[in-house]
Amino acid sequence: MIGKLNHVAIVVPDIEAGTATYRDTLGAAVSDPIDLPDHGVTTVFVTLPNTKIELLHPLGAESPIAKFLEKNPGGGIHHVCYEVEDILAARDKLKADGMRVLGDGEPRTGAHGKPVLFLHPKDFHGTLVELEQV
Amino acid sequence: MIGKLNHVAIVVPDIEAGTATYRDTLGAAVSDPIDLPDHGVTTVFVTLPNTKIELLHPLGAESPIAKFLEKNPGGGIHHVCYEVEDILAARDKLKADGMRVLGDGEPRTGAHGKPVLFLHPKDFHGTLVELEQV
Repeated sequence: MIGKLNHVAIVVPDIEAGTATYRDTLGAAVSDPIDLPDHGVTTVFVTLPNTKIELLHPLGAESPIAKFLEKNPGGGIHHVCYEVEDILAARDKLKADGMRVLGDGEPRTGAHGKPVLFLHPKDFHGTLVELEQV
Repeated sequence: MIGKLNHVAIVVPDIEAGTATYRDTLGAAVSDPIDLPDHGVTTVFVTLPNTKIELLHPLGAESPIAKFLEKNPGGGIHHVCYEVEDILAARDKLKADGMRVLGDGEPRTGAHGKPVLFLHPKDFHGTLVELEQV
């Protein structure tokens, strides 16, 4: 069912410092910081030859990653995102297998303008999993 | 400097259950569990079209991931591994930038039989980074 690893999301306490580490220290291609108010994050895309790293920092009072940063003030790896061809078929299969979809269970438009879902980390051995239809 | 994302390593509390989740629930291609006593882990390779997920479980009393599992009994994302062409050049550049290399600073042979180094998570915003020469 799952295809490519679309990205690894990493929460950083300072988006400028995080960007500098990936650009200057690790020598990767990075985007400018992009505010995504609908998702409550500022993100920087780090483009690797085969996938992306997304650096995330909370944006606004309701940011869904604010709690993660409170718990992990130094930052940390937040989730992995796998691509699927048909997100509704994937969701229905996962639900039939007893997996919990976060929120109301309906796909929403993700940071790339495509339908996404998040799956409960307790059902995936402690890993928050995002699915993105491509 | 960094090239491809070689793998994302995920520690799971039960390697059979973790394998089943990736194989049966997520529909990915998985290897048999492989004991790597020199590295203190049992690993299962999950092959995605563009990279790998490595499921890890402690093996032996001295496992380097035992402490992680104590802290995160449900499991969690442990590290990311980036490929580099020349690990000694990469190490020297990183050290010149003030980054800390774990252990004695010399590359050791990783789980794929290639030279690897681990970088201090505090220098990478809470993310444990492995570099592998390819």
